[in-house]
Amino acid sequence: MTFEISLSSPATELYEAIRDLPIVSPHGHTDPAWFAENAAFTDPADLVIVPDHYVFRMLHSQGVALEDVGVGVPREARDPRAIWRLFAAHWHLFLGTPTRTWLEHMFRHGFGIEVALSTETADMVYDQIDAALERPEFRPRALFERFNLEVLATTDAATDLLEHHQTLQRGDWTGRVIPTFRPDAVLDPSDPRYVREIKRLEEVSNITISGFEDYLNALRARRGVFKGLGATATDHAIEELHTVWLDRPVAEELFGKARRGALEPQDAKALYGHMLIEMAEMSAEDGLVMQIHAGSRRNTNADLLESHGRDKGADMPVRTDWVRGLEPLLNRVGTNPNFRLIAFTLDESTYARELAPMAGHWPCLKIGPPWWFHDSLNGILRYFDQVVETAGYQNLAGFNDDTRAFMSIPARHDLWRRAVALHLAQQVERGLFGTGDAEILARDLAVDLARKAYRL
Amino acid sequence: MTFEISLSSPATELYEAIRDLPIVSPHGHTDPAWFAENAAFTDPADLVIVPDHYVFRMLHSQGVALEDVGVGVPREARDPRAIWRLFAAHWHLFLGTPTRTWLEHMFRHGFGIEVALSTETADMVYDQIDAALERPEFRPRALFERFNLEVLATTDAATDLLEHHQTLQRGDWTGRVIPTFRPDAVLDPSDPRYVREIKRLEEVSNITISGFEDYLNALRARRGVFKGLGATATDHAIEELHTVWLDRPVAEELFGKARRGALEPQDAKALYGHMLIEMAEMSAEDGLVMQIHAGSRRNTNADLLESHGRDKGADMPVRTDWVRGLEPLLNRVGTNPNFRLIAFTLDESTYARELAPMAGHWPCLKIGPPWWFHDSLNGILRYFDQVVETAGYQNLAGFNDDTRAFMSIPARHDLWRRAVALHLAQQVERGLFGTGDAEILARDLAVDLARKAYRL
Amino acid sequence: MTFEISLSSPATELYEAIRDLPIVSPHGHTDPAWFAENAAFTDPADLVIVPDHYVFRMLHSQGVALEDVGVGVPREARDPRAIWRLFAAHWHLFLGTPTRTWLEHMFRHGFGIEVALSTETADMVYDQIDAALERPEFRPRALFERFNLEVLATTDAATDLLEHHQTLQRGDWTGRVIPTFRPDAVLDPSDPRYVREIKRLEEVSNITISGFEDYLNALRARRGVFKGLGATATDHAIEELHTVWLDRPVAEELFGKARRGALEPQDAKALYGHMLIEMAEMSAEDGLVMQIHAGSRRNTNADLLESHGRDKGADMPVRTDWVRGLEPLLNRVGTNPNFRLIAFTLDESTYARELAPMAGHWPCLKIGPPWWFHDSLNGILRYFDQVVETAGYQNLAGFNDDTRAFMSIPARHDLWRRAVALHLAQQVERGLFGTGDAEILARDLAVDLARKAYRL
Repeated sequence: MTFEISLSSPATELYEAIRDLPIVSPHGHTDPAWFAENAAFTDPADLVIVPDHYVFRMLHSQGVALEDVGVGVPREARDPRAIWRLFAAHWHLFLGTPTRTWLEHMFRHGFGIEVALSTETADMVYDQIDAALERPEFRPRALFERFNLEVLATTDAATDLLEHHQTLQRGDWTGRVIPTFRPDAVLDPSDPRYVREIKRLEEVSNITISGFEDYLNALRARRGVFKGLGATATDHAIEELHTVWLDRPVAEELFGKARRGALEPQDAKALYGHMLIEMAEMSAEDGLVMQIHAGSRRNTNADLLESHGRDKGADMPVRTDWVRGLEPLLNRVGTNPNFRLIAFTLDESTYARELAPMAGHWPCLKIGPPWWFHDSLNGILRYFDQVVETAGYQNLAGFNDDTRAFMSIPARHDLWRRAVALHLAQQVERGLFGTGDAEILARDLAVDLARKAYRL
Repeated sequence: MTFEISLSSPATELYEAIRDLPIVSPHGHTDPAWFAENAAFTDPADLVIVPDHYVFRMLHSQGVALEDVGVGVPREARDPRAIWRLFAAHWHLFLGTPTRTWLEHMFRHGFGIEVALSTETADMVYDQIDAALERPEFRPRALFERFNLEVLATTDAATDLLEHHQTLQRGDWTGRVIPTFRPDAVLDPSDPRYVREIKRLEEVSNITISGFEDYLNALRARRGVFKGLGATATDHAIEELHTVWLDRPVAEELFGKARRGALEPQDAKALYGHMLIEMAEMSAEDGLVMQIHAGSRRNTNADLLESHGRDKGADMPVRTDWVRGLEPLLNRVGTNPNFRLIAFTLDESTYARELAPMAGHWPCLKIGPPWWFHDSLNGILRYFDQVVETAGYQNLAGFNDDTRAFMSIPARHDLWRRAVALHLAQQVERGLFGTGDAEILARDLAVDLARKAYRL
Repeated sequence: MTFEISLSSPATELYEAIRDLPIVSPHGHTDPAWFAENAAFTDPADLVIVPDHYVFRMLHSQGVALEDVGVGVPREARDPRAIWRLFAAHWHLFLGTPTRTWLEHMFRHGFGIEVALSTETADMVYDQIDAALERPEFRPRALFERFNLEVLATTDAATDLLEHHQTLQRGDWTGRVIPTFRPDAVLDPSDPRYVREIKRLEEVSNITISGFEDYLNALRARRGVFKGLGATATDHAIEELHTVWLDRPVAEELFGKARRGALEPQDAKALYGHMLIEMAEMSAEDGLVMQIHAGSRRNTNADLLESHGRDKGADMPVRTDWVRGLEPLLNRVGTNPNFRLIAFTLDESTYARELAPMAGHWPCLKIGPPWWFHDSLNGILRYFDQVVETAGYQNLAGFNDDTRAFMSIPARHDLWRRAVALHLAQQVERGLFGTGDAEILARDLAVDLARKAYRL
């Protein structure tokens, strides 16, 4: 038996009215190759475990070696059934986590599996998923359609050639898969990839970068290419939020040092802080919505970074100062009616203290949905509890799933929609507004706010 | 149809026993001229929209120009009905906010309006309010009495001549309207008004300020005037809480520079930090209760500050360190039995971590009610959740409405009283204490703690 | 009539299945002399009021002089009945606090008292407790057995001779009372006791400390003695969490200065930060579980420290940065399978932001239960709300009571078990998992996770 979030009877009515609305997925990390090539997913372990840091970080925390669940192991060297069995034996670790809720939803609704996963049922569940993956209706494009995806955005490096997106644009499949411009590695001089990536930026933009203006033009050119392939947004990941406007000669000088890898940390921070404002100004020009994901300290486990690379579950949230961090940017671009900024935080203490008051003032600013560890039932309820009273609902950016796990998309949106229904039913019960308003807000939160915030 | 916070049946009983108690309003921002002159309020826009930053900041966040709702526009140049219609067309923005709850309460209980505000009903609601405002029972003094206000404190600059308060004292109206001593501009050398205000302090105190002792004496004299007009409290607004005791020669030197506008930022911070302790010592002498409102970063939108001035919705909360910030002050004055300090925070993470433990130790310290953005149903419930277990109830300062919107006072106290009833009913249901204790605590929270904390 | 936390009917079933399980108490501050000597407790004031900072800090906050409740007064100079009456007269201050819940549980279950404490009943309650304390079944060992204590850990300075623990080991009483190695005063050069304690460390370890290696060896020796007497853990109290690895010559040099009391604050911080990593490495060697209690600023009331000494209710929580603070330690020892670290925070904003993500990655790290001011009904519910979704349940360290008040141990574990039942019943109601899993988790949280985390 699998479980799903229970709803009271008024919440059920709100939920059922939005359950089957299309899925708008304006931010995530799926692989565009899946849709361009439309190849079958390999096996259950490859679908569920190996690429999903939510899953393998929990196993790792309980002493399971990452190699034993295939992480860092070439696909051909993995034993997917053994990986699956090990995972099933540790399934109890996920009690109370959204990962479990998502996976049970996927098992049930994606594959028709009703039994609970356990050591005893591991093989049976494996076989059922494995058999399904071979069928045409489990190919990426068929799933995209079955999931009722209206639009799906991927996240792509500024220097990515976007070949799969080009393939999709040239092809005749009508699914809307669009890129997102993610320039961290060409903006942040403290990123170890920076010097190499600036060179690559020259190549892919076909602009010789002799100075700072060329650099800006190369970035502008890349944004144009992304936009031409359907992008409506950019995305920025920042550990410690800092923006500052530098006079042009200073920016010029720092950039000159940066591209030679010769910048002091304090100057690197300044240049990055300046470039965020440049990006905001370009957003005001070209209309791409700017997303800022702040407060994740990346790769805190040095050994793991060396042995397995980035994104292996050792990124940790830290405190964020949105008010002072964004002030220079907002004072330069914040009242431009063409500028839009969506802010994501891992520091929930900023919901009520900073983001809600800021979004309740600045016309450009929308609050992104609960991010990463906070994309969970309680995380969502805390979010509504803390943002709505000051920001209202219309300053929110709806939901996005932010996932690498394609099959989990319906589950994540379903959890959000259930939580929305729970929240709104409680608002009605508390006497804040009536059922009619709740029904409108439910649709807003399920799809309309995301469409609007991302200009889709 | 308008809405109001629903109560369970045990909460209803607790609420009804406190609903009609007098209103004690020991901290707020109403205009004493209203009561001294007792003139009619001009029109609905002037009553509800133009002066209320809660209202116009939300409109601004959704792209409504402040001019279009009369902010920064001379009264004679405004079209109040057009402002009202624009407001009504955006009424859905306020769903889920306390502003909506307060206004619906005011519409219903203040003006007898039961229909929901909308584009369709905008004119009808406008006309109904407009007609009422012309009637004698809607003059400020009549409303004061109808609201059952036991006492109302205004907030007044240290250099304010308090003419309206003097008029009230000389007159025969018995309503108790008292001033509050707010000396920020004569204490904080980083305030742009400082140099001018020190000069003004000389004038209004009639004390030539040759040095630091004169400065203290002038402040003492002003406090005496306020006290003579009924004041029982002072109020201090501080972005980053910092207190430090300076030796007299240092304070003397810094003050000398400060009044010439020649102080470095670090020294300005030190002098302000010192002056807060001087204020605390004066409070221990003259018995005026010290209020500290910490953690609001003022005027973060520079363009708006230039075009429209202060208090236009761009003040943003920031993190606050109460433990280290108050330590020097508390170590100097904190055990003086005549000293009382009421602390207000915009950083809810300090409720359980700092303020409740501090108030549970220092005899002088009381925790003020949820402030500003947190004066809301969830904000109040989070407050009780996080402070009571460590501070108990008797270390709280009851409620104050902190409002500029006179007509919203009953609504704000009503929301507080409903939230108190909800909280206490839950405590009883959870088995923490019985109904008899809950009834006593309900009265404490509604009126008695505020009377006691403010020495009223 | 006394009160206790109410449970819904599904919660009651979960609670009843764990209510009578043995008590595992792996961290606390009871006095080992009680069990070694097994003398009767003196009187009710000495049992309940004088040693319990939770109790007397609240009285102090309302202006009761500590002397009047016996704090800082030699036992022979106290009037215990007068103290008790004063306490009873202030009993209403504790409404809503866990102190009241614990004491009412102790009155009822420990002493069979059903009447509510008040000025009227003060003498009766006093007499009933006083009479009980003279009976053999209220001696410490009898209570230990009646409380069904499986194990009780005390907390002991690194230089403590552990005479009482030795007496217990030599004796034939079978109660398991074990020490915990608490080396703050020999690790933190900014501790005023440091220089004296390093000398004492030489004496009690019988190792001449000529240099840094000797110092480490002396510490190793002491850990060995503790382990020989049953210790399974160490404990570290830190105001501002900071760890750093120093090269041996630097550590050598700083230690040389430190023991002469000649270290600059910045260097003291560095040396302490280094020593925490040395302790972690020793833990990986000898298997003692490392506990870190971070974020308490000690003795913030200077007058009180001078007049009454440490631990008198003026310790205040401050913000903590677990991610950056522990990073150097974890990068050095964090993947050693023999290393275990239990983290306790007073900064609840770190539950979801830092500790849960960290514990969901690092195999060594477990999250300790809600600590100190947060060991309360709401504190526990907030803890589950914020940690479980990311860390799961198996990365928690169960419960510990952390108390100086021996008689309150059953009450504290009972409150935890009720809160666990409330939490799990809600999880089941919300559809996260079924009753069978909830029953297993209830046992885990009541006893098994603590046994496992502390290697008991």
